[in-house]
Amino acid sequence: MPEHAATSRLQLSGLCFLLQILNILLFAVFVRYSPESSPCPPQLNCSRRNQDSGFQQPRFQDVHIQVLLSFGLLLAFLGRYGPGSAAISVLIIAFAIQWAVLIQGFLSFFLNGKIYMGAQSMVSADFCTAAVLISTGAVLGRVNPVQMLLLALLEVILCTLNEYILLSLMGVSDSGRSLTVHTFGAYFGLVVSRVLYQPHKDKRKREEQQDRGHSLDVFAVVGTVYLWIFWPSFTSATTAHDNAENWAVLNTYFSLVASTTATFVLSPILSEESTPWMVQIQDATLAGMAVMGMAGEMLVTPFGALIAGFLAGLISPLGFRFFTPVLHSRLKIQDTCGVHNTHGLPGILGALLGTLLTLLATADTYGDRLELVFPLVAQGSQTVTDQAFIQLSALPLTLLLAVLGGCLTGAVLKTKGLRSPPDAQYLENTVLWEVKLRNC
Amino acid sequence: MPEHAATSRLQLSGLCFLLQILNILLFAVFVRYSPESSPCPPQLNCSRRNQDSGFQQPRFQDVHIQVLLSFGLLLAFLGRYGPGSAAISVLIIAFAIQWAVLIQGFLSFFLNGKIYMGAQSMVSADFCTAAVLISTGAVLGRVNPVQMLLLALLEVILCTLNEYILLSLMGVSDSGRSLTVHTFGAYFGLVVSRVLYQPHKDKRKREEQQDRGHSLDVFAVVGTVYLWIFWPSFTSATTAHDNAENWAVLNTYFSLVASTTATFVLSPILSEESTPWMVQIQDATLAGMAVMGMAGEMLVTPFGALIAGFLAGLISPLGFRFFTPVLHSRLKIQDTCGVHNTHGLPGILGALLGTLLTLLATADTYGDRLELVFPLVAQGSQTVTDQAFIQLSALPLTLLLAVLGGCLTGAVLKTKGLRSPPDAQYLENTVLWEVKLRNC
Amino acid sequence: MPEHAATSRLQLSGLCFLLQILNILLFAVFVRYSPESSPCPPQLNCSRRNQDSGFQQPRFQDVHIQVLLSFGLLLAFLGRYGPGSAAISVLIIAFAIQWAVLIQGFLSFFLNGKIYMGAQSMVSADFCTAAVLISTGAVLGRVNPVQMLLLALLEVILCTLNEYILLSLMGVSDSGRSLTVHTFGAYFGLVVSRVLYQPHKDKRKREEQQDRGHSLDVFAVVGTVYLWIFWPSFTSATTAHDNAENWAVLNTYFSLVASTTATFVLSPILSEESTPWMVQIQDATLAGMAVMGMAGEMLVTPFGALIAGFLAGLISPLGFRFFTPVLHSRLKIQDTCGVHNTHGLPGILGALLGTLLTLLATADTYGDRLELVFPLVAQGSQTVTDQAFIQLSALPLTLLLAVLGGCLTGAVLKTKGLRSPPDAQYLENTVLWEVKLRNC
Repeated sequence: MPEHAATSRLQLSGLCFLLQILNILLFAVFVRYSPESSPCPPQLNCSRRNQDSGFQQPRFQDVHIQVLLSFGLLLAFLGRYGPGSAAISVLIIAFAIQWAVLIQGFLSFFLNGKIYMGAQSMVSADFCTAAVLISTGAVLGRVNPVQMLLLALLEVILCTLNEYILLSLMGVSDSGRSLTVHTFGAYFGLVVSRVLYQPHKDKRKREEQQDRGHSLDVFAVVGTVYLWIFWPSFTSATTAHDNAENWAVLNTYFSLVASTTATFVLSPILSEESTPWMVQIQDATLAGMAVMGMAGEMLVTPFGALIAGFLAGLISPLGFRFFTPVLHSRLKIQDTCGVHNTHGLPGILGALLGTLLTLLATADTYGDRLELVFPLVAQGSQTVTDQAFIQLSALPLTLLLAVLGGCLTGAVLKTKGLRSPPDAQYLENTVLWEVKLRNC
Repeated sequence: MPEHAATSRLQLSGLCFLLQILNILLFAVFVRYSPESSPCPPQLNCSRRNQDSGFQQPRFQDVHIQVLLSFGLLLAFLGRYGPGSAAISVLIIAFAIQWAVLIQGFLSFFLNGKIYMGAQSMVSADFCTAAVLISTGAVLGRVNPVQMLLLALLEVILCTLNEYILLSLMGVSDSGRSLTVHTFGAYFGLVVSRVLYQPHKDKRKREEQQDRGHSLDVFAVVGTVYLWIFWPSFTSATTAHDNAENWAVLNTYFSLVASTTATFVLSPILSEESTPWMVQIQDATLAGMAVMGMAGEMLVTPFGALIAGFLAGLISPLGFRFFTPVLHSRLKIQDTCGVHNTHGLPGILGALLGTLLTLLATADTYGDRLELVFPLVAQGSQTVTDQAFIQLSALPLTLLLAVLGGCLTGAVLKTKGLRSPPDAQYLENTVLWEVKLRNC
Repeated sequence: MPEHAATSRLQLSGLCFLLQILNILLFAVFVRYSPESSPCPPQLNCSRRNQDSGFQQPRFQDVHIQVLLSFGLLLAFLGRYGPGSAAISVLIIAFAIQWAVLIQGFLSFFLNGKIYMGAQSMVSADFCTAAVLISTGAVLGRVNPVQMLLLALLEVILCTLNEYILLSLMGVSDSGRSLTVHTFGAYFGLVVSRVLYQPHKDKRKREEQQDRGHSLDVFAVVGTVYLWIFWPSFTSATTAHDNAENWAVLNTYFSLVASTTATFVLSPILSEESTPWMVQIQDATLAGMAVMGMAGEMLVTPFGALIAGFLAGLISPLGFRFFTPVLHSRLKIQDTCGVHNTHGLPGILGALLGTLLTLLATADTYGDRLELVFPLVAQGSQTVTDQAFIQLSALPLTLLLAVLGGCLTGAVLKTKGLRSPPDAQYLENTVLWEVKLRNC
């Protein structure tokens, strides 16, 4: 068996080496810094928002914070899963950011055989990395590092494709990425988890769930604080105008506080404790943020954000209590970090809310902001109903792409070479688990 | 007894539900986003500073950071008290921010039956939330979550009233809130603690104090780093002009480093260890910041900040060593997190220093900054002596309001329904303590 | 023996008191806030970059982040060394910032008998503090707090002198301080460690190294996240122009992700584990940042940053595996936190890369940025070859100053009064170690 462990080690080392060399070569051939400050020359077919509404390049400070947001997610998972997953997650982030700059560059910033990138490309790459991290949250603990790298490799391509279709081709307004990050990431991960389902892992899983309570709350506290600080600016990173950004940030905050209170409403009823765990509060925080992704810049009154956040905060613990067991027993989908409750359902809710708000949008209530939030409507080339239909149809499309992509990726991850041989199954997992246990 | 525990759980759940629905309804009826960027239309009776000196709306980035500052405080308490208090503190923050937006809106931003809010309202709400957190620091571990929510409900009203009287009616200059946050929060909490005093809790308390040394230093380290990063910008959040802000930030830093050194001067003398614990450094950090609240923008030389910080850093450990035991044995005031030493005394010292600096203010030393720091003096409608008298008289007024408010709140929290029945006393506490113990 | 411990405690207390009073007096006599926003009046002989290229004062927000970055380093060491070192590190930071403002003020901002300081002075002081922290990383655990304070006292002077010679007199371009912070700090610390070498500490050291694996990964995770957020803006803090800053930030990120991947390439080969520890990832992060110090603003293509980061990420684990044991056994240099691998070697690599890039610099590839990165070349007063020679000669000069300064400092720290008497040696260390053990 030690031979197998050695092979597994060399496999990871070799794959990292190959992927990094590949990235360096592709960057050397294709990627250059954009000489001008504009991230989107008029020749390129960028997202319509950028072309139409005088998109301002985000300040570099913000970029740092965006890149970091992935770490917020990382820390979010640590609360549920222990510091053992940290090292692999950092590798996934490091690889996915480079890969996403390349893939998104080929689709959106390709001009005369070169990709011209700037701070904006980093932000887009990071949105994509966040989707990958959400997906890994569903399969954490049941895939080896090599499989996880391949998952990132494939998901970045599919996620970018989905984003390109929605934002650039269809003109969907989804500034905080309820659909392209939260919903896509969650369902992609769940489908991969379904394809990789192995019944005899069941017992192990159950033990974990019992163990969950003992996970380090330190990470949950630090992770929650991170999310409260950095996510609202993430949600509003791509909103164009000062006033619009303002409201997206404030709406996200109000959604957050309401979903946190909702956890305290449900938790004492669902469990035997009077106060919820910090990980439950963290889940509510994530849910409250996912629901504001699309609607964040559309809401024009604070109480709307309070209601949406309150509903998201109720959905998440109900999902953990009633939905996750059904998913597992009936649909044979294991969901390690509960991404379905914290990203999937709230993301769908956010998309529906966004559609409703689009229907209600009028020039009177939006004023100058109409130009920013729905440029095509403001120009008169589309009616509000058309735009609402586009927003709504983006939801099944995203789900379809996530399911197809998840099936494909799961199939690839299941191939003989990657799947650990039946005997070594346990060992293979030990290699990964060892890291976790040693640190706990 | 399990019935009682169940009742207690449902009480919290129901109260959270009621308060959140109340907030949503009040927001729906009254609160709207301010259509213009100006947070204070001329028709409103806002703080004079805003009206007079062309107040710039803070950048949204800064708002994120401000909202977070409460978490800095939260982490500060965790170092002393363990992660068990985190969940309740997050609930308090989530409720107090919404409630403060409403109450402050009614007092300061009410126009034509609507509250027009913007990023600035969030910052003000967060100042108020910080005061509530300081007060809870005094009673942590001796009140149940329901009582804590009611404390927040009442303190937000009283704190806003105090702030309105001081800043808007009297024209006191207190940009970093030495008085309205630190002093008010500390003495309010101490008086509530006095009213709720129960002699037979004594033993438990003593055990805690012995335990204190074993608390997780992880939180103290992370909390201290947070405070160093985010508090200086908190102190200077409401200073109007770039140059003035500059000095407030730098003064706060110098106060910080001096108070940290002071801890190393006193700690080896007062205790048997050559180096202080991280929680002691954190206390010094808090004290060094509280003392710069009012004086931060008034000091025109860096060595003044060094001296003030050094004194605050000496007061805090002396207070823990000599004052806290006296408070407990003579005045029957228990102070769980030592807020009297880290917020109360340094806040008073800061107010006295501010008065002294106001007396010394001349147009020569301040130049253009006089207009910003003391607008009424610069316009000639007040002499420097008048302004100094106003600054000084704000201190006893704040103390009076804090004591009266604390008595009232303590009396409410002591009412039959909220106070746990004598037999269930222990149990009630267990429900709360369980959370703590499980996590430690 | 208790008497000795008492003396040691009083020694630290007294030294802190004296140094703080000295700082207050020197600040009172010499330091004033700069009345104008310009940090460098034309009469002063500031760094040439400042004089020539319309240096913009950094935003205060950035200053906070800079001051904090020292804490990033602090957290970096915690991952390897445990929370016990935190309290002393905070003292070192608090003292070194004040002292560096004074010393740098005398050298660079002295005018009419006064030092005029602003936000810029804080940033410079913090760079210097970072160098001191790197040096303490080499000797941590083998010096007492009094010796560490004296080390800071002397190193700030020597580091400022080195910086003044390189940046102001020679006109070296080193915006991210590969040489003046990373290389100087690492070799200064290593030489001090050599001078203080005591053979019978060997065993203790070996035990530590075995223990290393069990150190709290919590700190490594939090520290790594901190560095990813805040260091890129540190590297670009003194780059002058928006466009140039942009590239420095992006280059640093690309260097970071490549060095992280490199760790995953080497770690499975060098050790028996398939995934590296978080502390190894943190080392790679530090190495990837040190290598971008000088070259960050010079690189004009992203793949250059990927290659440099990849090399730095390979050098660091190889250094730990093969170089550190040789350093210890042959050269009798103990390196507690491995600063040679994470700061020393990558710093030298960064300086060589910077020289190469200077040689290749042409007006064509740089465009307007030439004026910003190499002002003297752009003005025509120097050829590119001259500038490259200056860049290259700065490396041996820095090494020479670091070695001489380290010898001098080591000799001072070895004097009778400071060195613990032979018998009390163990005890003295216990005082320091106790803190560590109690917290683990």
